[in-house]
Amino acid sequence: MERDKALKLLRSVKNGEISPEAALSAFTEAPFTELGFAKPDNHRALRKGVPEVIFGQGKTPEQIRGIVAAMKETGARDILITRLDDAKASALDDIPGLEYFETPRIGVVDRVKDKPLKGSVCVVCAGTSDLPVAEEAAVTAEVLGSRVTKVYDAGVSGIHRLLAHLPELDEARAIVAAAGMEGALPSVIGGLVSCPVIAVPTSVGYGASFGGVSALLSMLNSCAAGVSVVNIDNGFGAGYLAHIINMTNGLP
Amino acid sequence: MERDKALKLLRSVKNGEISPEAALSAFTEAPFTELGFAKPDNHRALRKGVPEVIFGQGKTPEQIRGIVAAMKETGARDILITRLDDAKASALDDIPGLEYFETPRIGVVDRVKDKPLKGSVCVVCAGTSDLPVAEEAAVTAEVLGSRVTKVYDAGVSGIHRLLAHLPELDEARAIVAAAGMEGALPSVIGGLVSCPVIAVPTSVGYGASFGGVSALLSMLNSCAAGVSVVNIDNGFGAGYLAHIINMTNGLP
Amino acid sequence: MERDKALKLLRSVKNGEISPEAALSAFTEAPFTELGFAKPDNHRALRKGVPEVIFGQGKTPEQIRGIVAAMKETGARDILITRLDDAKASALDDIPGLEYFETPRIGVVDRVKDKPLKGSVCVVCAGTSDLPVAEEAAVTAEVLGSRVTKVYDAGVSGIHRLLAHLPELDEARAIVAAAGMEGALPSVIGGLVSCPVIAVPTSVGYGASFGGVSALLSMLNSCAAGVSVVNIDNGFGAGYLAHIINMTNGLP
Amino acid sequence: MERDKALKLLRSVKNGEISPEAALSAFTEAPFTELGFAKPDNHRALRKGVPEVIFGQGKTPEQIRGIVAAMKETGARDILITRLDDAKASALDDIPGLEYFETPRIGVVDRVKDKPLKGSVCVVCAGTSDLPVAEEAAVTAEVLGSRVTKVYDAGVSGIHRLLAHLPELDEARAIVAAAGMEGALPSVIGGLVSCPVIAVPTSVGYGASFGGVSALLSMLNSCAAGVSVVNIDNGFGAGYLAHIINMTNGLP
Amino acid sequence: MERDKALKLLRSVKNGEISPEAALSAFTEAPFTELGFAKPDNHRALRKGVPEVIFGQGKTPEQIRGIVAAMKETGARDILITRLDDAKASALDDIPGLEYFETPRIGVVDRVKDKPLKGSVCVVCAGTSDLPVAEEAAVTAEVLGSRVTKVYDAGVSGIHRLLAHLPELDEARAIVAAAGMEGALPSVIGGLVSCPVIAVPTSVGYGASFGGVSALLSMLNSCAAGVSVVNIDNGFGAGYLAHIINMTNGLP
Amino acid sequence: MERDKALKLLRSVKNGEISPEAALSAFTEAPFTELGFAKPDNHRALRKGVPEVIFGQGKTPEQIRGIVAAMKETGARDILITRLDDAKASALDDIPGLEYFETPRIGVVDRVKDKPLKGSVCVVCAGTSDLPVAEEAAVTAEVLGSRVTKVYDAGVSGIHRLLAHLPELDEARAIVAAAGMEGALPSVIGGLVSCPVIAVPTSVGYGASFGGVSALLSMLNSCAAGVSVVNIDNGFGAGYLAHIINMTNGLP
Amino acid sequence: MERDKALKLLRSVKNGEISPEAALSAFTEAPFTELGFAKPDNHRALRKGVPEVIFGQGKTPEQIRGIVAAMKETGARDILITRLDDAKASALDDIPGLEYFETPRIGVVDRVKDKPLKGSVCVVCAGTSDLPVAEEAAVTAEVLGSRVTKVYDAGVSGIHRLLAHLPELDEARAIVAAAGMEGALPSVIGGLVSCPVIAVPTSVGYGASFGGVSALLSMLNSCAAGVSVVNIDNGFGAGYLAHIINMTNGLP
Amino acid sequence: MERDKALKLLRSVKNGEISPEAALSAFTEAPFTELGFAKPDNHRALRKGVPEVIFGQGKTPEQIRGIVAAMKETGARDILITRLDDAKASALDDIPGLEYFETPRIGVVDRVKDKPLKGSVCVVCAGTSDLPVAEEAAVTAEVLGSRVTKVYDAGVSGIHRLLAHLPELDEARAIVAAAGMEGALPSVIGGLVSCPVIAVPTSVGYGASFGGVSALLSMLNSCAAGVSVVNIDNGFGAGYLAHIINMTNGLP
Repeated sequence: MERDKALKLLRSVKNGEISPEAALSAFTEAPFTELGFAKPDNHRALRKGVPEVIFGQGKTPEQIRGIVAAMKETGARDILITRLDDAKASALDDIPGLEYFETPRIGVVDRVKDKPLKGSVCVVCAGTSDLPVAEEAAVTAEVLGSRVTKVYDAGVSGIHRLLAHLPELDEARAIVAAAGMEGALPSVIGGLVSCPVIAVPTSVGYGASFGGVSALLSMLNSCAAGVSVVNIDNGFGAGYLAHIINMTNGLP
Repeated sequence: MERDKALKLLRSVKNGEISPEAALSAFTEAPFTELGFAKPDNHRALRKGVPEVIFGQGKTPEQIRGIVAAMKETGARDILITRLDDAKASALDDIPGLEYFETPRIGVVDRVKDKPLKGSVCVVCAGTSDLPVAEEAAVTAEVLGSRVTKVYDAGVSGIHRLLAHLPELDEARAIVAAAGMEGALPSVIGGLVSCPVIAVPTSVGYGASFGGVSALLSMLNSCAAGVSVVNIDNGFGAGYLAHIINMTNGLP
Repeated sequence: MERDKALKLLRSVKNGEISPEAALSAFTEAPFTELGFAKPDNHRALRKGVPEVIFGQGKTPEQIRGIVAAMKETGARDILITRLDDAKASALDDIPGLEYFETPRIGVVDRVKDKPLKGSVCVVCAGTSDLPVAEEAAVTAEVLGSRVTKVYDAGVSGIHRLLAHLPELDEARAIVAAAGMEGALPSVIGGLVSCPVIAVPTSVGYGASFGGVSALLSMLNSCAAGVSVVNIDNGFGAGYLAHIINMTNGLP
Repeated sequence: MERDKALKLLRSVKNGEISPEAALSAFTEAPFTELGFAKPDNHRALRKGVPEVIFGQGKTPEQIRGIVAAMKETGARDILITRLDDAKASALDDIPGLEYFETPRIGVVDRVKDKPLKGSVCVVCAGTSDLPVAEEAAVTAEVLGSRVTKVYDAGVSGIHRLLAHLPELDEARAIVAAAGMEGALPSVIGGLVSCPVIAVPTSVGYGASFGGVSALLSMLNSCAAGVSVVNIDNGFGAGYLAHIINMTNGLP
Repeated sequence: MERDKALKLLRSVKNGEISPEAALSAFTEAPFTELGFAKPDNHRALRKGVPEVIFGQGKTPEQIRGIVAAMKETGARDILITRLDDAKASALDDIPGLEYFETPRIGVVDRVKDKPLKGSVCVVCAGTSDLPVAEEAAVTAEVLGSRVTKVYDAGVSGIHRLLAHLPELDEARAIVAAAGMEGALPSVIGGLVSCPVIAVPTSVGYGASFGGVSALLSMLNSCAAGVSVVNIDNGFGAGYLAHIINMTNGLP
Repeated sequence: MERDKALKLLRSVKNGEISPEAALSAFTEAPFTELGFAKPDNHRALRKGVPEVIFGQGKTPEQIRGIVAAMKETGARDILITRLDDAKASALDDIPGLEYFETPRIGVVDRVKDKPLKGSVCVVCAGTSDLPVAEEAAVTAEVLGSRVTKVYDAGVSGIHRLLAHLPELDEARAIVAAAGMEGALPSVIGGLVSCPVIAVPTSVGYGASFGGVSALLSMLNSCAAGVSVVNIDNGFGAGYLAHIINMTNGLP
Repeated sequence: MERDKALKLLRSVKNGEISPEAALSAFTEAPFTELGFAKPDNHRALRKGVPEVIFGQGKTPEQIRGIVAAMKETGARDILITRLDDAKASALDDIPGLEYFETPRIGVVDRVKDKPLKGSVCVVCAGTSDLPVAEEAAVTAEVLGSRVTKVYDAGVSGIHRLLAHLPELDEARAIVAAAGMEGALPSVIGGLVSCPVIAVPTSVGYGASFGGVSALLSMLNSCAAGVSVVNIDNGFGAGYLAHIINMTNGLP
Repeated sequence: MERDKALKLLRSVKNGEISPEAALSAFTEAPFTELGFAKPDNHRALRKGVPEVIFGQGKTPEQIRGIVAAMKETGARDILITRLDDAKASALDDIPGLEYFETPRIGVVDRVKDKPLKGSVCVVCAGTSDLPVAEEAAVTAEVLGSRVTKVYDAGVSGIHRLLAHLPELDEARAIVAAAGMEGALPSVIGGLVSCPVIAVPTSVGYGASFGGVSALLSMLNSCAAGVSVVNIDNGFGAGYLAHIINMTNGLP
């Protein structure tokens, strides 16, 4: 519960408008919908500025459908469903207003289409195989309201391809850098720009890439300042974080 | 062999009622049924208070059928078969008295239905995807005789959902807390309650969750006292342990 | 804040005895002492039944001294300081009422000496080298108020040494089983008794014991039900948990 | 070389002011000082907005002295030397203008003292043992020009201590959350606030904390959006990143 | 080339029976059949006392067929093909004299049926799910010529089942002990018997068993002397080693 | 951009033949084809002596087709596509001039057939199951222009098979040694020859081979000098490196 | 208790020579000395053929002194104390009859000097740095009664040094092969001989040897049959096992 | 034994100049000096072109002294002793002709000073802390006879420092690239040059660098072709390999 509402509630107790018992109940009553198998968090937008996002992996289509319905009832829009594979997307295609992005495996329900996009988030990836993760970041940031530019297949083994895009990097307020294998891209970018770089290790690779661990470790050990890391293949998290950095207001 | 029986046996030797050779045989004769591929432990209820439980994974339907039959012959009831996937459950659906729980993948043979449920075990899980593990704990504890309450989808990213259930947590005599990903739930619960908290890491997650290792490590390193941990996805073990703690007699 | 106090506070608001602003402040005011470098949790005894315990490792003697002083002011007794090495213990030996246990590296301030010990906790360890961890569990449980019996050096390579102590195991309400190397002890005990077994892996061993990881994994994978695990060398956690299980009241 | 300078250089070539050969040399001539054992990067402030920072670990006092001297010659101030242990700091105490912070092991040369601090960075840590890392973040952000507030010893096992500081969390433009052991703190904070949370795993703990790996994995798997992670014990990196996020200009 | 043959060859050179060039060729000529994709080692029986064994995994049916044919040409019998899954076994069922053991996935070509079995190898396993590995060891030792006894499903959670078979353990000249999960079985057996115990970790288990790593580490850290370890699921290796220990001649 | 071209460009600026702005553009304009999802690096042959190679894994057939087309337009021949599984190869069999090697899963487009093969690369592998990796190295080196000899199934458990091929090893200018399981082959070869040995761990094995990690570690720890290592199963990388070593010109 | 004694005891009960209560006590009375901190296993020689061995690491000199005294009282000789570092050995040098071997860090109390050595155990090591482990195996086997030959510094990078010792290898009844780094030695030996090879990984190496893990994995994955593995640096275990294999009686 | 000598020996047997027994002895007699604790390999120069190198770590000064003496007797010069720490170097400073390099911890005995240096090896390192490893490579290559250029402190966070040295990179016939932390340097270099790049991960870093593992994995997963890897901190191995590549003769 937000602080203003709390104070108002306590004033109502003082005024005798509601009983202490009811107030206590209000204090402990959760601002969520109880579905038994899930508790969609209706207050998340208040706390976080962005509504709850549905993590599609490991949920049945029925569970997803139920959560979407509960969120719609509270008036939510731009409802993101991440890690929604093709099969589940098909099973859910009767949900009104569901738009599906195949490469990043994202569904969006009731997207607000005419929202003006702001600032600048740049999404870079090292190779063509990193596209699903890069697109997950890009779609997330865009749906949330950021303007997004893309620099794909710009890995360090042909560094001129990256340097050719220095203008895009320079004008970004936050950069998402996705790479698998040796994961060197964010370090190189981090040495070139002044804005925050969000490194996303991808599971692209084989052998000693260990499903993205090699790239993850590279990124955590980056000798360039201003680089931080999210989980392997977590394009959503990177796009989300880039968006909120991008949206930071100016200092007073 | 329990000690009373051992003493009685030795007295019979003294009385000449049985020969020393037969007594030795009795001492070393195993209280189990020899099936060749398995040795169902008929004395487990004597030692442990709970009959043998069949671990279904890695056994053929024929082997499970054989073990169930051997246990039934010794009069066992409430025979639990864990990690029984759909296919095997179908292959075994001609076993009389088999009840199958799909989400937790548990079979129960000859369930004693009218058993009064005692005390209070609370099963909490962090997300909807943790349900199979949480349900395995809940069904186990309930079949063994504990009264069970459930608080599902109460992860720490929206902590008010957990705090709204403080009453259920407070009245529990043992709590099972299942979580994947960062596995922070048991630590937070452990800081709020006075009863034992049994943490169950789940394999829910991706990337650096390493199939539950991240959650496992979090739980082992919990800074809250009173928390202990079972294997990844071991809902059965957690439910079993919660049950025996719940059933602890009062101090004299 | 405990629930009774919360309700009383809200009733005072209704009665006009305190203002809503003050009540809000009370709701959010933390029941801890602010030391800058630490926030001793004065309400822990209310929530957990046991006062805050000081983790000595990584704290300077000055910091420990400050926390002890703050806790004493709130009337705390039986103040446990764990992982207190010899050097720090010497540096603190001017604290009045500090008793130091060398093997388990535990300090206790203002111990309540004539407290009656209740129930039965049995602490077992596999080898002589496990003594520091076993003693940490034993001293913890005893200081908290449990009666403790000890079975030391009873590892599985000479299993008759363990079987000779079946009576102690049988009468325990909770067992702590500490072992390094292969960590097989808790599984064997878990197969013999009906009470909960708290397994503590120790860092005793060399080579592929990996500082206790081998024992930890063994214990997590125990095929015996009723076994749960705490962190490597976490004798304190095991003793604490054994104590609260031991103290469980009887079912109504 | 920055783009404006490049264009100017090319214009000089056109004007015949300098020869193509000299221009080529300028293009490839590195804007750094060659010391043989090191190449202090004099253009870093141009590219990154913050001058080069000296990583003290693994460098001899003589090498550090040499780099500081080279940087001073280019007019650098607020020269940070991180991971500077006591012994090296003593060996360097004849450097004019060196200020040494003992807890975070940071040296600053020629600090600009009257710099106005801007915005708000909040540094939170879970336990007293995390102070060296938390202070490294705090001192870094402050030396770079951010206003910093501190909430120390606010771990999740007594969550009311954290909730008591919600106002500080709410007003922050970027939060650094340092924790060892189970590393749950950033996830809980991430669920409560809307600004970016930079998680710093610390090596505080023992046994299965594996020198900070447990906390690192927890943080990477955080179910709260807006959380990213830096290397274990990398207080500097977290403070640096928090600073540049804090300094982000408003959107046009 | 064995030493006797070498000496004889050199004597022939001396006698002028063969030229030095031919002798050199003989010295370096490999006693194997060159198939391009494989080099069946025809001299292995001379060096090792047991003919080459075909590792079926990762070979195509055509390759296996070719190797078998080459070995048959040199007069080999009792040709073992390990890790031969059902599909490959079917594809090869036209090889004359091929006998297939389904549980251990072993094929034997031209088995010498009336060979007298000698000595005593005892194969023990912890659970029913360990049967494939245990049977691989048993079939291997038996085909090579050892008499084999089996004690299956005798894990440490019901230790009386193992103790009931002490006579079989006592009379064995080598014991194979296969176990997954916590892998405690070999340690307990190692404490009871005087002959060598060959521990085989199996991949049976889930979660923190990590595909047999937990059992492997347990076994490597066994506190019982006389225990050594082979690779996870390497029933063949264990059976082979037990056989050669069993066949050891008496001391002069 | 190569240096000669750069100097020429600057001279054109001086001569007024092109404007500074155009020159700057040329300097930063990337010598690659922008496909959106990929940026084929057309200058790689200039920098590396070998054209870009397409990593087929993780790319869709459409993406591969697009990259091949772009490369063909720039006149590239001998276009290698690695990790091209059967299904993708079939989907691409309408590309004119595509030759497919099934065992090493390599496609070559527009192979220059009558190229004279030079020098000597020897590819050795330990077992028949290592053939796909060994062949990937062999085909790569041969397509690039090296003469290749092959010694397959020459693992250390029958070391005479390797010693029989000492002549081939001795005349090689670079050796690729591929092995799975214990990965001992490169160490033994490294002790016998004077040329560089490129060790390729393969994922052949089971259990504690951990998908090639065991072999990888063996090779990294080789006590023989002159051995270096590439990624697990990276036959392409090994063949490529062997080729460029083989092609090294003589010293002046 | 051995079986013969058990039967005799039961016959005494029958004859009324002892009471059933006394017999029960005898059955459960452990054949060990209770020292509180240790339980020296006096019956180990009966069960295992070799008396208890004292693992010196992690025990205080006082504890070791106590265990030695207790063992001497039961008439034990050839008492081995392993992992006894210099400092402890000095602290114990007043124990009568203590002989100390510095390289392998072994103490022997009351060694039976004129014992005839039997059979043949060959101890091989890869490099000079492996000597402590190799000597631990050699001294152990010799003290227990085996004749031992040594082949030191015979690693695979100069394989002729090993081949020069084929006669010693051939005549051995059991071989201990110790190696660090890549650990290839046991595989090569395993391919050359027919007797069991006990592989001992040593912690010799650096970097990716990970304290012996690389060698351990190599040895577990050995493609040569007849090889088994003990823990890293476990020279004692290898020597012990080699001894009992060496002592195996001939088949009837 | 080299082949020519073998043939000559056999001819002598034919001629009756030596007996078959003596010839056999010659064949198996190892071309090494037997020191008991070591077997210096006197034929290594014949096989490998470079004499045996002494790995100083884990050897006592006495052992090193003995090996040096044995090698000197066979006329060896340029005897390298690697990983020779300060203390051992001091203990050995009475060896005539010993030259000690402090940073790379290398000793050289009887260095051939006026040897002409050939070709070009370039040693690059990422940071000042990598100097010990880089210097180990550089000194090794130079002592063996290669001309060496050095580019130190040229990590990817300020990539212009590397690009400024493109001429040195371009003219090298082999490049050693040493880096710790994220280990990105070899990938970037590998994308810029056509000669082989030998990547050396260093243990420089902290936290998730895991003593060089992060850099090691990055390098193994390099997306640039022509890169291979040696063990962590293995500057010697890299310098050795660079030298033999550099010395490769031209193709006929």
